[in-house]
Amino acid sequence: MRVLGIDCGTERTGYGVIDSDGLSHKLQGAGTIVTSPKNPLPERLLAIAGGLRQVIDQYRPDAAAVEGIFHSVNARSALRLAHARGVALLTVAEAGLEVGEYSPLQVKASVVGFGRAAKGQVQLMVHSLLGLERADSKCRISSEDACDAVAVAICHATHLSSRQRLVGSLSRTSR
Amino acid sequence: MRVLGIDCGTERTGYGVIDSDGLSHKLQGAGTIVTSPKNPLPERLLAIAGGLRQVIDQYRPDAAAVEGIFHSVNARSALRLAHARGVALLTVAEAGLEVGEYSPLQVKASVVGFGRAAKGQVQLMVHSLLGLERADSKCRISSEDACDAVAVAICHATHLSSRQRLVGSLSRTSR
Repeated sequence: MRVLGIDCGTERTGYGVIDSDGLSHKLQGAGTIVTSPKNPLPERLLAIAGGLRQVIDQYRPDAAAVEGIFHSVNARSALRLAHARGVALLTVAEAGLEVGEYSPLQVKASVVGFGRAAKGQVQLMVHSLLGLERADSKCRISSEDACDAVAVAICHATHLSSRQRLVGSLSRTSR
Repeated sequence: MRVLGIDCGTERTGYGVIDSDGLSHKLQGAGTIVTSPKNPLPERLLAIAGGLRQVIDQYRPDAAAVEGIFHSVNARSALRLAHARGVALLTVAEAGLEVGEYSPLQVKASVVGFGRAAKGQVQLMVHSLLGLERADSKCRISSEDACDAVAVAICHATHLSSRQRLVGSLSRTSR
């Protein structure tokens, strides 16, 4: 299954695409959509929507997930972030994809094993799960935002696969 | 000039379209895009974007404005509202329209004359400015959200017209 993960921001929106069976994951692509703080918000939202549409066109994911908003960031930033997140959710829904939503705690718990993991630990585990821990710098994920987005994709792939297995074993039990 | 005003909400997004020269205003259309709280947020954002695109296609406005977020509403509601507002700003920008943004205080100050006006006073003034205060119920604006959106449109039309007059008189002075 091909899964797109998105880590929203008004300045930097990370995206990551993996192929996954829920246990092993392979990186297909990752990057960051950067918008200038000098531009008005509507223009930046246009750039985010355009960038994400391009990513969806290029990779044709089967599923997508967007990270939730961490409530303790300051209220003003959280509101700006929510504008970008609304646009990301819309773009994914317009592509006919159901959207998984996970809190940063859930993403960290899924990738590292505990929700309070540091940024560096998440990056280390993402590279390790993708078999990139010994890769040269060209193959590694270029930015922190892209890496966070790949973590969201891994979290979603793991959840979808667990759900499928659960449904499968329940249907076997009920036969 | 034809101006579209939008009052965002995840449950009810009001819109109002007026023709205006900055002093007198004529209502062209107003209504509310309603989404069900039972539906997931991405689906509701799709409905808001679809509804606003239809309004823009139907009325072909020359300018648009979206009301800002009132910071004192609770943080959770403000975040949900910001998702819808991001989608509204995107939709308007995609139509090639520059977006005016006004706080609720600015809208009330522009329509009623003071920023702390009550909802009822805004509705009364909007109907009066449009010459609808004695109209029968069929001609009056159907919902509070639509009325708020018309107030945003009036505020934007007034600001644009003042700016044009200012630019005009400055260019005459500098000749």
